[in-house]
Amino acid sequence: MKRIAILGSTGSIGTQTLDVIAHHPELYQIEALAGGYNMTLLAEQVNRFRPKKVSVATKALAEQLSSNVPNGTKVYYGEEGLLETASQTDADFVVTALVGSQGLRPTLAAIEAGKDIGLANKETLVTAGHLVTERIERHGVRMLPIDSEHSAIFQCLNGESVKAINKITLTASGGSFRDRTRDELQNVTVQEALQHPNWSMGAKITIDSATMVNKGLEVIEAFWLFGQPYSKIEVLIHPESIIHSFVEFADYSIMAQMGNPDMRVPIQYALTYPDRLPSPSQPLNLAQVGKLHFREMDYDRYPCLKMAFDSGRAGGTATTVFNAANEAAVDMFLKDEIRFLQIEDIIAKVLDQHEIAASPTLEQIIEADHWAREAARKSI
Amino acid sequence: MKRIAILGSTGSIGTQTLDVIAHHPELYQIEALAGGYNMTLLAEQVNRFRPKKVSVATKALAEQLSSNVPNGTKVYYGEEGLLETASQTDADFVVTALVGSQGLRPTLAAIEAGKDIGLANKETLVTAGHLVTERIERHGVRMLPIDSEHSAIFQCLNGESVKAINKITLTASGGSFRDRTRDELQNVTVQEALQHPNWSMGAKITIDSATMVNKGLEVIEAFWLFGQPYSKIEVLIHPESIIHSFVEFADYSIMAQMGNPDMRVPIQYALTYPDRLPSPSQPLNLAQVGKLHFREMDYDRYPCLKMAFDSGRAGGTATTVFNAANEAAVDMFLKDEIRFLQIEDIIAKVLDQHEIAASPTLEQIIEADHWAREAARKSI
Repeated sequence: MKRIAILGSTGSIGTQTLDVIAHHPELYQIEALAGGYNMTLLAEQVNRFRPKKVSVATKALAEQLSSNVPNGTKVYYGEEGLLETASQTDADFVVTALVGSQGLRPTLAAIEAGKDIGLANKETLVTAGHLVTERIERHGVRMLPIDSEHSAIFQCLNGESVKAINKITLTASGGSFRDRTRDELQNVTVQEALQHPNWSMGAKITIDSATMVNKGLEVIEAFWLFGQPYSKIEVLIHPESIIHSFVEFADYSIMAQMGNPDMRVPIQYALTYPDRLPSPSQPLNLAQVGKLHFREMDYDRYPCLKMAFDSGRAGGTATTVFNAANEAAVDMFLKDEIRFLQIEDIIAKVLDQHEIAASPTLEQIIEADHWAREAARKSI
Repeated sequence: MKRIAILGSTGSIGTQTLDVIAHHPELYQIEALAGGYNMTLLAEQVNRFRPKKVSVATKALAEQLSSNVPNGTKVYYGEEGLLETASQTDADFVVTALVGSQGLRPTLAAIEAGKDIGLANKETLVTAGHLVTERIERHGVRMLPIDSEHSAIFQCLNGESVKAINKITLTASGGSFRDRTRDELQNVTVQEALQHPNWSMGAKITIDSATMVNKGLEVIEAFWLFGQPYSKIEVLIHPESIIHSFVEFADYSIMAQMGNPDMRVPIQYALTYPDRLPSPSQPLNLAQVGKLHFREMDYDRYPCLKMAFDSGRAGGTATTVFNAANEAAVDMFLKDEIRFLQIEDIIAKVLDQHEIAASPTLEQIIEADHWAREAARKSI
């Protein structure tokens, strides 16, 4: 019986993680859940999975939730609540599915408490990769990717030597606007941006897919997860999202991982690794799909991806700022305060103003993160 | 330094194996070569790679070759010569790249001499899979696939549990006539049949690709190599031959192996396994390929594939007879004695006449093989 905590249980990854767990009740037990604002769903989850601890965003919500949960469940809130559910439980495995860099501290706390991590919160590695990987080594825990691309790479590396890697290729669907020119992007709406062609995901990551920031975050995540230089990480447009990513080895043999776009497969793999169990997903029928398409990434069409590579190569707080500026800009876009193409302008402007600190401490990272959000808001 | 013997060194696989070895002279030493009739090429190979033993088809050819090889090289001939080069050397690893069921005895001899096998001669497993696998276990040697499809599957199983296999899918280009209807196959010529769209291979296997017998042999080979029932082995048409085959696991995750169609990659992998080294191949550029196509196998269009599955399921001498009848029929087709579509008629007729022996001995297998060739020749 594996004991699990889920940070971000009411989001897309969180609910799908619970779906996977519900299919294997004999294997998993929920120790803790951290949700945000959706109290109806969180109350349902708590009553179904009976965690010992649950955390919500605010004190008021905690009071509201308390009356709707079993006696055995303690309710926490705020950042303290996240840290409590991340690290102060009997969980062996923590799924970090929070949105954005708020996932950093709880993830570090979970690692320091000796828990294995199922990483769906890529911003954690993007914003503080060197601190996270250093702690993973120090505490001897495992960090298993839940992102479909990184799970694919991780599966391609099964039984292989990382020394034999020639190149990691992350596939990109191209997002909701892949068939539009840059001119046609001038006046797109939030509603249009939220229509991802293949994956049903949260709002922030769907916008990040449209700007290709998401792929940029994934590139930086791959750098930290697989210890490969940026020169060995590539991005390829693959509209169908069937090949989830692939690895070319020294002998030019390529291992690829495929399947229907269904996050429950990588989520389950992180939970069952190194085993594989029947999943609630559907089998892929390639004959029915008929064709798979591939085309080169266009860095002029997607300048945010170029900024991600540049930030990654610059290192230090550059990726922190890339991520925080993007989080602030997407927030403004979702609130209709800026237009779609301003997201990339804002990131570029903030990166331009930033003075990079190499090997930053956690405090410097948090400071750079705050500064970048502020700078992003000021820049419009 | 790995010591290698190659049976069938002047054929397509043999020459490509030597090409791979020539790229890694510090890793491999040729102990023995067995060629057939091409004395010019064989003399070249012997003078370049300096094996201690070499074998040719006939006594006359052996005498002819003897004057063209260094003093340190002993020349043998005939079936005795094959057995000598297969088993009576210091080789650790024997590449069996003979064409057809003549590969059986030398392969068994090599296994009994404790040598690992690089299997390019699929007819060996097709004709006597139970004898071969039983001896592999008894002598504790390894059999590594060299066929691109089986090498792909083997790579997909790296670090995985065979218990988690849902399905093995062998991809098939469709061969030289994949875009023709059965009506259009009535009067095709040998020359047309020898034009494979993706792979440059020997004559027999190219005809076998056009009839889909080759894929049938591969299905039976997969049955023995990976110990999976026929219900878990499928064939999918994939005209580009870029995805060389794939495995679906219990969680519906699919691992696929890809690359340019270049036999030197699977050949080298069999030699270097479990390591990977730079290969003389070219990297695959998927953006340049642009599209990959897939369609369901049509068993009415390719009845030989259905016969292969049926023979495999029937077991015993059925696959021996399937293979031998095909070898005889292809031989007649290459000599212009029969038309293309008669190949499948002959196999069907011979299988129909055959009384299957279950768990046959080596003698029964050789007898069934001879009988099937005779029956094939008589049937026209």
